[in-house]
Amino acid sequence: MSAMDPTPATGALNGATHLFPVRVYYEDTDAGGIVYHASYLRFAERGRTEMLRALGIELSRLKKESGLIFVVNKADMQYRQSAALDDRLVVETTLKELSGASVRLAQSIHKLSEAGERAGEVFEFDVQVTCVNENGKPARLPASIREKFSAHL
Amino acid sequence: MSAMDPTPATGALNGATHLFPVRVYYEDTDAGGIVYHASYLRFAERGRTEMLRALGIELSRLKKESGLIFVVNKADMQYRQSAALDDRLVVETTLKELSGASVRLAQSIHKLSEAGERAGEVFEFDVQVTCVNENGKPARLPASIREKFSAHL
Amino acid sequence: MSAMDPTPATGALNGATHLFPVRVYYEDTDAGGIVYHASYLRFAERGRTEMLRALGIELSRLKKESGLIFVVNKADMQYRQSAALDDRLVVETTLKELSGASVRLAQSIHKLSEAGERAGEVFEFDVQVTCVNENGKPARLPASIREKFSAHL
Amino acid sequence: MSAMDPTPATGALNGATHLFPVRVYYEDTDAGGIVYHASYLRFAERGRTEMLRALGIELSRLKKESGLIFVVNKADMQYRQSAALDDRLVVETTLKELSGASVRLAQSIHKLSEAGERAGEVFEFDVQVTCVNENGKPARLPASIREKFSAHL
Repeated sequence: MSAMDPTPATGALNGATHLFPVRVYYEDTDAGGIVYHASYLRFAERGRTEMLRALGIELSRLKKESGLIFVVNKADMQYRQSAALDDRLVVETTLKELSGASVRLAQSIHKLSEAGERAGEVFEFDVQVTCVNENGKPARLPASIREKFSAHL
Repeated sequence: MSAMDPTPATGALNGATHLFPVRVYYEDTDAGGIVYHASYLRFAERGRTEMLRALGIELSRLKKESGLIFVVNKADMQYRQSAALDDRLVVETTLKELSGASVRLAQSIHKLSEAGERAGEVFEFDVQVTCVNENGKPARLPASIREKFSAHL
Repeated sequence: MSAMDPTPATGALNGATHLFPVRVYYEDTDAGGIVYHASYLRFAERGRTEMLRALGIELSRLKKESGLIFVVNKADMQYRQSAALDDRLVVETTLKELSGASVRLAQSIHKLSEAGERAGEVFEFDVQVTCVNENGKPARLPASIREKFSAHL
Repeated sequence: MSAMDPTPATGALNGATHLFPVRVYYEDTDAGGIVYHASYLRFAERGRTEMLRALGIELSRLKKESGLIFVVNKADMQYRQSAALDDRLVVETTLKELSGASVRLAQSIHKLSEAGERAGEVFEFDVQVTCVNENGKPARLPASIREKFSAHL
């Protein structure tokens, strides 16, 4: 059946901003009847990962080839309204700043109507990720990655 | 930016079989370097949820309108090979049997090459879900749902 | 075997500060070989929940009896160092401020040696949780809860 | 404050059977109002991990020293009744069989009353875990581990 196997969503990159779609499943919710607060961090990470993939950077290859991983080292978050089961969301990720070993990104998550109209902000996330080596020490971003980021800032 | 907000993957229904794409993120993996074993149950549930959506059944509406939810009440699983960060997967869900309050489905997860070729089975899941009411008691499947399932068996 | 069934950890309340122990399992880690960043939010929530239980407030009863839940609505976090599989941690939760519908707490997570000595801060979390009713609207904290909090501030 | 830092639960080993306590938090539940079905696999893994620790086997050390990890490769599960927020549970793990590279365990999860009385079975899990090396190939269990297991069968 491989001819028809569907493709995972990758989102769309437009300048320094990347958009990635998310659907809310039972796994993302809690007994309060809404999305569990830590689930938004998972959604935000999917958005950052797909932005990197759109820039030609794959996290698994980065780790294999250079022993580098990105870790979150600082974040501020605001919850604007709750999302719920079956909601359609979009994760918006914008590159804000590039320093030696770190990248700062502004992320927001919006609810969409089924027709695809934005229906209110759900979550706002200001996050700094740092590149670290196999010993957990901050490591300068590889030149190839730095160039890809710079081209989009 | 709503004009360009991307759409979440819904997969494709073909007779009694539904195909749904999954991408592996850090959230799905563990320190063994591979996908955490319970993550496959989350992927399988996404596949079942999207199969239902393709049949016109939305779980949040079902709960709101009739107080019914589907719960997993029995499953057998086989892990064939491990999947890893950034892997592209497809969840295949096939309706097997319909009884008063339950549905039995056969699900499998395959790894795909980036070109989209199937590259080996990862996970096999034989699962029975039961419709229960707000008191947790098994409830006969609503006629409208029964008809939609039957039309695809 | 019920005579010997062990008791889940509840931690210890001392004035406005509560201490709760956490062990890191595979479920909490990711393929980077360390604890997944969103797992710390789960650990922090366990700490808050057990602090409330120590104050005589049980979240499930609160929801059943008054339809109220606590939601996170704002948080700042700092990751100081990473934790890893099998690490022994302690979540420290301190009540900081009480307003009409909200509570502000300062939380930190420390790594412990197997002997129980503190071995460095891992995570710092400044979080505001708000009491909301069944329609998701902020609701004044019930007097009984307000009294329990006040007695510990 | 290290003098009073509380100790994580380790459970109790009695012959071939290990008991481990679990408390249900919001992170473990879903919008159905009950424990999310895949959460029981996380609870079961905590039980297996603590059984191993009680036998003197630490998974992180095993990986570091010999490059070996245990992976789940086959499991059957039955859900008997649902558990909910704040429930107190106990995970019972029994060693069943030892072969070259694999261990078979029978696990069950029971609900307890607050007084600690068993109040019904929630989940039953028959699971086989296999020892694999860094290339993902099954590897004979180290003699030291085999002896510890055998002493308890």
